This record gives sequence, structure tokens and C-alpha cells, in this order.
Amino acid sequence: MEPDVITEIIDNIRFFISIQDEANLKTILLGTHPVEIADLIAHLDEEEALYIFNLLPLELASEVLLHLDEYNRELITDALKHERIAELVGEMDSDDAADVVSELSEDKAQKVLQEIDKEDSEDVQELLRHEEDTAGGIMALELIYVNQNSLVDEAIRQIRQQSEEVEDVYNIYVVDDNEKLQGILPIKQLILSNGDTRVADIMERDIITVTEDMDQEEVANLVKKYDLVSVPVVDKEGRLTGRITYDDIMDVVDEEASEDIHRLAGITNDVEIHETSAFRISRVRIPWLLFAFAGEILSASIMSHFEASLEKILIAAFFIPIIMAMGGNAGIQSSTIMVRGLALGEIGLLHARKQIMKEFRVSLINGIICASLIFIIISIWFSKMPNNIEFGAVIGMAMFIIIINATIVGAIIPLFLKKIDVDPAVATGPFITTTNDVLGLTIYLGLTTYLLIHLNISF
Amino acid sequence: MEPDVITEIIDNIRFFISIQDEANLKTILLGTHPVEIADLIAHLDEEEALYIFNLLPLELASEVLLHLDEYNRELITDALKHERIAELVGEMDSDDAADVVSELSEDKAQKVLQEIDKEDSEDVQELLRHEEDTAGGIMALELIYVNQNSLVDEAIRQIRQQSEEVEDVYNIYVVDDNEKLQGILPIKQLILSNGDTRVADIMERDIITVTEDMDQEEVANLVKKYDLVSVPVVDKEGRLTGRITYDDIMDVVDEEASEDIHRLAGITNDVEIHETSAFRISRVRIPWLLFAFAGEILSASIMSHFEASLEKILIAAFFIPIIMAMGGNAGIQSSTIMVRGLALGEIGLLHARKQIMKEFRVSLINGIICASLIFIIISIWFSKMPNNIEFGAVIGMAMFIIIINATIVGAIIPLFLKKIDVDPAVATGPFITTTNDVLGLTIYLGLTTYLLIHLNISF
Repeated sequence: MEPDVITEIIDNIRFFISIQDEANLKTILLGTHPVEIADLIAHLDEEEALYIFNLLPLELASEVLLHLDEYNRELITDALKHERIAELVGEMDSDDAADVVSELSEDKAQKVLQEIDKEDSEDVQELLRHEEDTAGGIMALELIYVNQNSLVDEAIRQIRQQSEEVEDVYNIYVVDDNEKLQGILPIKQLILSNGDTRVADIMERDIITVTEDMDQEEVANLVKKYDLVSVPVVDKEGRLTGRITYDDIMDVVDEEASEDIHRLAGITNDVEIHETSAFRISRVRIPWLLFAFAGEILSASIMSHFEASLEKILIAAFFIPIIMAMGGNAGIQSSTIMVRGLALGEIGLLHARKQIMKEFRVSLINGIICASLIFIIISIWFSKMPNNIEFGAVIGMAMFIIIINATIVGAIIPLFLKKIDVDPAVATGPFITTTNDVLGLTIYLGLTTYLLIHLNISF
Repeated sequence: MEPDVITEIIDNIRFFISIQDEANLKTILLGTHPVEIADLIAHLDEEEALYIFNLLPLELASEVLLHLDEYNRELITDALKHERIAELVGEMDSDDAADVVSELSEDKAQKVLQEIDKEDSEDVQELLRHEEDTAGGIMALELIYVNQNSLVDEAIRQIRQQSEEVEDVYNIYVVDDNEKLQGILPIKQLILSNGDTRVADIMERDIITVTEDMDQEEVANLVKKYDLVSVPVVDKEGRLTGRITYDDIMDVVDEEASEDIHRLAGITNDVEIHETSAFRISRVRIPWLLFAFAGEILSASIMSHFEASLEKILIAAFFIPIIMAMGGNAGIQSSTIMVRGLALGEIGLLHARKQIMKEFRVSLINGIICASLIFIIISIWFSKMPNNIEFGAVIGMAMFIIIINATIVGAIIPLFLKKIDVDPAVATGPFITTTNDVLGLTIYLGLTTYLLIHLNISF
């Protein structure tokens, strides 16, 4: 919905809430998509949101709850009694139910699990046993499967029966008598085949599967690579235990991209975008600020070691910001290309040396351009001083070395982190900027001091 | 495949290529998934890649070509005759065919379009008329539709016929006599309904559609929001013209996330990760480096204006790196949260003021922490000098102001860009860092000069 449409509807809803006109509110809500009701609720204040939510019939309320962001979902579930939450959760698929239950307080979660249907409760507890960011943590238990020895007509009957429990049918899984996954029966194949064909004869045997403990990012990369609409999950013995569908994968893709983007910016943990506590937001940002702080205290101490030369040639200090900024930017460019390429599997460790050599060539070009520019600018700027050309040449040389150094450091660190199995995004952004600041400052001050004293330049 | 498995297979393939053992090569290739053949080709050098590609039978070659990255696809198509490309393109769905043709040289594209089947050629040309990053640019023309007045049995017959042309069937679209889209017939509904039911009576009428000119990012956000497996595309008159499936959307999600990540790092255009020309890579990185360069020349000139006070209090220069780095990092954190939140639609302009106030509160906390730390460190570090407490207090105050300023600037710029319809990611990364450097340096030098002279401090 467009912002002005939302504003208008919200105004209407607020008016009807203020006069407690439940009939009109229900008419509006029943004609609105659950996704849009969730949108509207996010724009209301707490009391209004609860009032609206309590007007919704069970099935609709359950869908709306799923489409709320975590922050607003917590607002609602905090206010609801556990009996009502149990009813809402009972309407959901196992994976969604597990997500909602996992967000409740431990006490409330226990009560909800006791209240819901025993089978559902076992399903949810089974799913909650898996790590949140693994295949087991995102799979649903609802799936449709037939035995490989069934005939098509019989399979269709079984599928009709099972499909009352399963909302979306993309693939029919085929298992043997020990529940081990043997293949997939594409729904199209089922429609096109004769009733007396054996399932085993028309199923696809060469299929992609994932194990319960596979990392969700790896699962997402597989699903994207092979363009899968859903992927079956098997346990260690190869028994079919769940399935992951494309919509879960899209959430994973967004989640992983956000995680990488935030980590590149020095934000350590995922924090809900609707988090309102400034303290909790500060807590995920302050670690890298303090890391940079420590690095730059080191910079200050390096500068204090060069105090004597800075006193002699104070104008060398004028170019510290540009030296640091160019190193920082060049390093961020090369490291970002690496981090993203590694995350999408577009860059592999097999080609590491080739990638680094490429970055080296790029840094040569960019280094020459920036070094020439600073040389020209300084030569002209200080043209009234003696030794302006020499001074420009020294700063230019420092710029050249620092851009090359920063680019290469930016390329190598993510590759190294990947090699030792650390997420390259974690320690790349502020880590690289700070490292490059300290290295750059040392190179710059060392080189200028050495050369300028060597050239016996003073102003 | 694991790196060591790939290395082993590649060694085998290279050996068989060297002894021109086509029989063994074909055996390996025919037993390998097209996605994996594409993987292998990316690891071979040009001549080997072509040799392997030419061994593939038509249908497999066509699939492999699609799964190659752009760089390797160009290598192959550059070497192939246009007749062969036409054969390969003829095997593809319209959207894939259009993608491949759009990457060819203009001359070769024309020849290929003349060579392929007239109907296919018209389809591809129709698709190429749309902007690459719109719904029209990513849709496929292959879809299955039935008239709303058909009965289920009749519809199934039509679907069987049409499905020979369409690889994946997720939804059956329902149109009226004027080809205007009226609804969707879920495939599950079709299986569960009696043969003499009218399609209009079991179709879903309340459906999400997109128009041909809608931006692909907007399409992706809709598909994700409503958990769609495919979405129909209509023209301005509401006539059904194509469909976009979840796998195209996943590509869009990755593409848009990469674009944002690269832009945040100051890389202006998408450049193929396998691009080998250092000059072409440099060309997409140098603009923001030069922007930062210009900004930092301004920094140098600001410092030169404060030359007199820097000569008097040189140690104030030692803390320029930390002031700039803390401002830069704080600004990157707040701007990244905004850019990502705006891209995913998690932050809207409706809440802009609330978001900025939140960032202000966060910056107060982080500002107080960093300012207190620098105050303590300076007080201890320079404890043998007079006025160490005053100096620490001045630097701490500057730090506090600069962190608040940088955080707020970082939050406001993306919101402002969104408001004037510019992609917030474009001008956020280096733009914010550089702006914060210049602003921060001015505030820092102005404040320290004023206060230190006011306090009559000298060392």
C-alpha cells in the first residue's frame, strides 16, 4: 500500500476505535489481506493494536501474527493469555509455530506447549531442538510423501488425503519402506501419467537433499544454484524428516545479506529494526566503535613518536586525513568485493591468488591516479615555498604505497578469514579500516620523515 | 561440490582433454548435473572450456550455458557461430533466451534472431523491449492459462497440452474472453475438484499482480511479503502478458543486495565478479575515490587555516585520526541501518522522525562512552603536563559532538535521498564518511582552538 493510502486507512481505523464501532472495524479487517492488516497494526500504538488484533477471527489472527515483525509480535503475545496463543499456534504450520513459540518467555512457551494438541506440541519441540540457523531450524514437518511401490492412482488418493494438512504442494517425496528418501515425484509428472504406473518408474532419483545440521546459508546457496522450489531435509540415516520451501529460503537470503551488510558496517549482532531501547542498540554498535577507538589511540601514540618531525614539517600533518581516507576507501572497496563474492560462492579459495593479483593491478592504476593528482595539487598549492616539487613527490609516493597496501590488505583478510572458517563479514569493515589507518599512518609518517630529512627539506 | 573434489575432477578432465579422449569425457559430462558442468567450465582455461562445451549434446549445452556466469558465457558465445547459438537459444525459455541474446554483440544478436524460429524470435524481441530491471525485463512469456468459463476436465486437457511448452507449473492463470486476468487456479484446487466444476467457481479472485514497468526490487518485495511462488504480469489494460517465478525473484534479491553492498562501499556500477580487466574494475571504483580525494583536500585546506593553533598545540593533531575514525564509524553504522531498512521496506518515511530520534538517543550513549574514555586516557597520558585535565575535557567534548553529529548525518542523508527518489545506497558510504570527515575536522579544530585559547592553555 502507498503511504497516503495507509495514512487514510489508519485515520479511519483510529476513528472507529475511538467510538468503539466494532461492526465497521470488522468489515474493514475481513476485507483486508492478512499481510496488510499486519502492516496496519505496525502503524498503530500498543493499545490500538491489541484492540484490533482481538477483533480478528482465529484463522485470520493466526496469519496476521505470522506477518507481524518480531517487535510487534512480542507486543501482542505479551498481552495475550497462553490459552489464546495456543489456539493461534494450533492453526500454524510446524515451522511457523516453532518460530512463534521460540520467541515467547520460557514460562509462557511451556504453558502453550502443554495447551496445544499433543502431536503439534511434539512437532514444535522436535523443531526447537535444532539450531535456529540450520536446515533443521528452518524446515517444516508438513510434507507429502508416498511409497515408491505405490501406483499413481493410489498415490493421488494418498496425496489428496495428506494435502488437507499441507498448504502448498510443490513436490511429492518418495520413500522406501524404511522412510528413507528415494526420489521426488514432480506434480506435473503425476498429472501427465497413467493411473497404473508405478511411482518408482516415474520419480526423479537424482535429487538434491540437505541434512538437518547444514548451515542455512549453505542451504540457500544450494537452492539458488539449482533453482529449487523446495528441498527435502534428511537425518543422518537418510530418512526424510522435513522440507524447506522457497519462501523460507528468501527469508534466509535477506537475513544473510542484512547480516553481512550490518557486519561490514561494524554492527555485531542482528538487532530488530523496530527495537526501541537505545541501550540495546548501543550494545551491538559499541564493540566495533571501541575496537576502532583502541586502534586510533595507537595512531595517536604513533604520531606522538613523530612529534619532532611534525614540528619541523607541520604541513605533513595536513595530509594525514587524505592519506587515511584514501587507504580506508580503497580497502573497503576490495574487501567488500571479496566478502560478497565469498558469501555468494562467486569467489572460491581455489582462485585466491588470481583474485589478489587482480586487486594488485587495480590498486596500481588507482594508486597512480591518486598519487599523480596529489603531486600536482601540492606542487601548485605550495609553489611559493622551496622544495614544493620534492614535497609533492614524497606525499605522492606515500599515497601510492598506501593505496596498494590498503587494497591488498582488504583483499587478503576476508580470504584468510574464510580459510580459517570465520565469517569474512564479521571482521572486515571497521577491522580493515582501523588496520589500514594504523598501517597507513606508520608508512606515511615513516616515509615522509625519512625522505624529507634525507632530502634535507624544511619550510 | 567441495574444493578438493572439484580439483580432482578437473585434473581428470584436463588429462582426458590432453589425450583427446572424447569418449571418457562424454561419460563424465553426461553423468554430471548441468550446474556442476558450469562450475567445472569456470575452472578451466578458455581453450579447454570450449573443447568441453562443444562435446555437450544440444539440450545439456543449452542448460550449461544458462548456468555459466556472465563472464564465461561471453567467452563461449564469442567463440561459437551464430547458427549454434541460435540452436542453443531455441531450447531456452523466453526470459533466458532474451538474457543470452541481450549479452551478444549487436551484430551477432541480429543474426541469431533471424536464425531462430519466428515465434521465438518475436518473443525474445518483445521481452528485450522492456527495461532490464523491471517486471517486464525479468518475466517469462511461457505460462499456462485457461478461460474462466471452462470446466475443470476441459481445463485439465488444456493444461496438459500447454504444459509441454512450460517447464514448471505453479499456478494456472484464469482469463476472460479479452485475455484480461481474472484470477488464479491453484494446482491443488484443480486436483481436488470435480471435473464438471466451472473454473470461475473455484478460482481465487483476490490476487497480487504486477505491471510490466514495475521496478524489479518492488516486485521482489511484493513476492516476499505475500510469500508468492510466482506472480502474473499484466499490461496497462490488465491483459496477462507474462509471469515471474520465485527463482527469478531470488536472483533479483541477490542482485539488489549486492548492488546495495557495493554502493555502500563506493563501487558505482555492477561489475562482473570475473571481470579481468583491471582498467574496467578501476573505472567503477575511481569515482568515489576521487570524491573522497576532493573532500580530503578540503580537509587539508581546513587544517592549513588552523596552522597557527596547531603549531601552538601540536598534540591536538595527534587526535585527528581518532576523531575522524569515530565519526566515520558511527556515521556508517547509522546510515547502513537506514539504507538496509529502506531497501527491505522495514523502515518507511512515515516513521522518519521517530527513527532519527532513536539514532540521536543511541549517539548520546555511544558519545558519552567514547568521550569519557578519551578524557580519562588523555588525563593519564599527559599527566606530567599542566592543563592535562582541561585538554582531555576539550577533546572529550569534541568527540561527543562529533559522534552525535556523524550519527545524525548518517541517518538523515539516506532518508532524504529516499524522499527525493534517489537510491539511498548510491550516495551513502563514501559520501557520508567524507562529509563526516570534513564536518568533524572543522568542528574539532574550531572547538579545540576556541576552547584552548579561551582557557589560555599551552604546552
